[in-house]
Amino acid sequence: MISNLPPSGFRDFLPRECRARAKAAKALSEAAVAAGFQAIETPAAEDLAVLTGKGSGENEKLIFKILKRGEKLKQASVESLADSGLRFDLTVPLSRYYARHQGSLPHPFKAFHMGPVWRAERAQKGRYREFLQCDFDVLGSEDLGSELDVVSTIVSALRDLGLAEGLSVSLNDRRVLSGDLKEAGVPPELEGKTLILLDKKDKMAEGDFTRELDGLLGETKAKALSGALARDGSTAAPEPLARLRELRESLSRLCPWAEFKIDRGLVRGFDYYTGPVFEIRHPRAAGSIAGGGRYDGLIEAFGGRPTPAFGGSIGFERVMLLLEELKGSEPAEDGARVCVTIFSPELRREAFAAAARLRTQGLKVDVCPLAGRLKSQFKYADATGARWALVIGPDEAAAGRFKLKDLRSGEEALETWEGLNARIESAAAREGTHA
Amino acid sequence: MISNLPPSGFRDFLPRECRARAKAAKALSEAAVAAGFQAIETPAAEDLAVLTGKGSGENEKLIFKILKRGEKLKQASVESLADSGLRFDLTVPLSRYYARHQGSLPHPFKAFHMGPVWRAERAQKGRYREFLQCDFDVLGSEDLGSELDVVSTIVSALRDLGLAEGLSVSLNDRRVLSGDLKEAGVPPELEGKTLILLDKKDKMAEGDFTRELDGLLGETKAKALSGALARDGSTAAPEPLARLRELRESLSRLCPWAEFKIDRGLVRGFDYYTGPVFEIRHPRAAGSIAGGGRYDGLIEAFGGRPTPAFGGSIGFERVMLLLEELKGSEPAEDGARVCVTIFSPELRREAFAAAARLRTQGLKVDVCPLAGRLKSQFKYADATGARWALVIGPDEAAAGRFKLKDLRSGEEALETWEGLNARIESAAAREGTHA
Repeated sequence: MISNLPPSGFRDFLPRECRARAKAAKALSEAAVAAGFQAIETPAAEDLAVLTGKGSGENEKLIFKILKRGEKLKQASVESLADSGLRFDLTVPLSRYYARHQGSLPHPFKAFHMGPVWRAERAQKGRYREFLQCDFDVLGSEDLGSELDVVSTIVSALRDLGLAEGLSVSLNDRRVLSGDLKEAGVPPELEGKTLILLDKKDKMAEGDFTRELDGLLGETKAKALSGALARDGSTAAPEPLARLRELRESLSRLCPWAEFKIDRGLVRGFDYYTGPVFEIRHPRAAGSIAGGGRYDGLIEAFGGRPTPAFGGSIGFERVMLLLEELKGSEPAEDGARVCVTIFSPELRREAFAAAARLRTQGLKVDVCPLAGRLKSQFKYADATGARWALVIGPDEAAAGRFKLKDLRSGEEALETWEGLNARIESAAAREGTHA
Repeated sequence: MISNLPPSGFRDFLPRECRARAKAAKALSEAAVAAGFQAIETPAAEDLAVLTGKGSGENEKLIFKILKRGEKLKQASVESLADSGLRFDLTVPLSRYYARHQGSLPHPFKAFHMGPVWRAERAQKGRYREFLQCDFDVLGSEDLGSELDVVSTIVSALRDLGLAEGLSVSLNDRRVLSGDLKEAGVPPELEGKTLILLDKKDKMAEGDFTRELDGLLGETKAKALSGALARDGSTAAPEPLARLRELRESLSRLCPWAEFKIDRGLVRGFDYYTGPVFEIRHPRAAGSIAGGGRYDGLIEAFGGRPTPAFGGSIGFERVMLLLEELKGSEPAEDGARVCVTIFSPELRREAFAAAARLRTQGLKVDVCPLAGRLKSQFKYADATGARWALVIGPDEAAAGRFKLKDLRSGEEALETWEGLNARIESAAAREGTHA
């Protein structure tokens, strides 16, 4: 017998989960389109040269590689068993995409890019090997409007999902941060490790962080760094800092439901970031739920013209966890309101014809394809969340009538076609649901 | 420099293509939900044991396998370099899914399953290695209502896409076909090859088919087979044939816009089919655009209870090709109607604030993030298909007004907030577009 489990870290989604995910994806997509971002799609797989070329960083180790086939596999050495792999993020594919298609796209280009990505992480609760990402990018503009556009659109999309309350956005600039490290006397060879440590700060106990920083830089430089990050000004990068303040101020006015603050210690992972970075948190979520930054330079790596770029990503899976925690699991709505039963094989056609007629009025109408077992069919109707069941037996068919069963009260009534519509519509109006 | 092409057979989609695909996917999804089918999702990857266990047939050779990693890879022999792969269809994952989750699902279960699948086919025009599939299945019912439900829902979905005209649906039953082969005296060891040849008949010249059939069976049996397939009745499988006629009759009444016919020679590929099979054609498409059949028995292979199942699949990529051929490429609609320009960095905030205010009225409003270069911004607005450009210079900002440029006529007018709305709305009403 074959196992019925998906591979470790991969997931099935039940109908209820699919409805919740589709609803959230729709809200994000609509927020993007309403703000002038245009949807694009890139393939699941890319050449390994693309995935490992630039911008992969730590993720390079997490690529699911696709085994070569046929003659290519026979001739492959152990090191070259694969020449393509599944994308681990959407930024690298977007950069390749833009380098290829920029001549056919508006300038600047505002891209909305949503789809699954794959990472061979150790599978654990809340961490999956296949997960959805949702990116907003402005390609081709250095103007601060890019930052304002991406961050405000993401913050608005999160509001549309019902997550406005308590949203907090941290802002920093890589150039300001580099200046702070330099001023604190952090030697260039320790810069990378210092950034990695700063990046992990939020996940560590305060004492552990101080101890590790002291161990890395020595107490004097560690203290100097803490001092530099706590200052108001920046000697090394005054302009980027002034720009960051302007951004903070503009965002605060544009999205008054969220809090915006400058966090001089914010790193935001990826080594391809070259300017402003941001991170969004929600009081009920453990880590960040969105983030991004400026990555001028990445698109040139794929042969595109030098292209300034700023992008942000919503952590779709974390957002779904958060929504479930805040709202609980949704009821089985959005399904069919009416379930037509099949009284007997002889009356199958009448059942389907009635369903088709009801659908022309915009109703969602299910037919339970189990002829003749009414009890099973009512059970099915209940399980799918239907509000009404329709029975067309021989007497009803002969009289051109319908038996309508109210699945909530259990009441049954003989109805004409007109009575049927009136009853369903008035119940929908009374119960505040869609017919 | 890294290549900017996706792997061979994989595709990027430009915004216009994404809009057309999303629109079609939405229509299919809505048709499914309106008929009581419930959306499910399965992962991109499955264990090879699942993919090759049952129901893979010829597709087994086309699996993209995922290379093992770390210690597992070091210990792997040449034959066991992979233990998972990308799904090549949605039926095998659905069967595994249902075997796993049937206790949490309604009985019977009507599933709508849409997503990409991957096949390492030789890449050629119109044949891709990554493509979307769209499946409708009824699991757990033997009743003819399953066939009626799936086929009528698919035929209705195709009508909703604007493909009603000329739709033709061929029906057959594997048991009737087996009976016909037996009656013609086709020896069991030649059954498989005969079915493969029959399956290819439509792609062959009449003469070639006859010659190959003669070669395979000898002239006498070949003629006997042609005779058996041309008959009205069936000695070996009279009941399945009667059921097929009942199905044809019911479908004809339920979906009068399509033609339904019994084609005794229809095979419809997969070796897991056990009963009725169907195939849908459109006069402007070369091959079939949808098809499916009954596959009782597949779910048991994954440890599920014996479960009758009937499913159909829409060839999404062929449907998209067909739609493009019939309707031509769509105009750049669905984008933002209004594009707000940024007159200068000092007035950036005003631009974003105006856009946000317009959006609260349900308008799609883009901001072009290129401060100060109005000509470039008008060009951008044009490229995105916007109808209006909004300019807020220092004079306008001081007077609380807006300069509205009609991108079609080139006319500019100074407007108040109220005048702005009125003008945009009246133009939308006049032009029959959405604001």
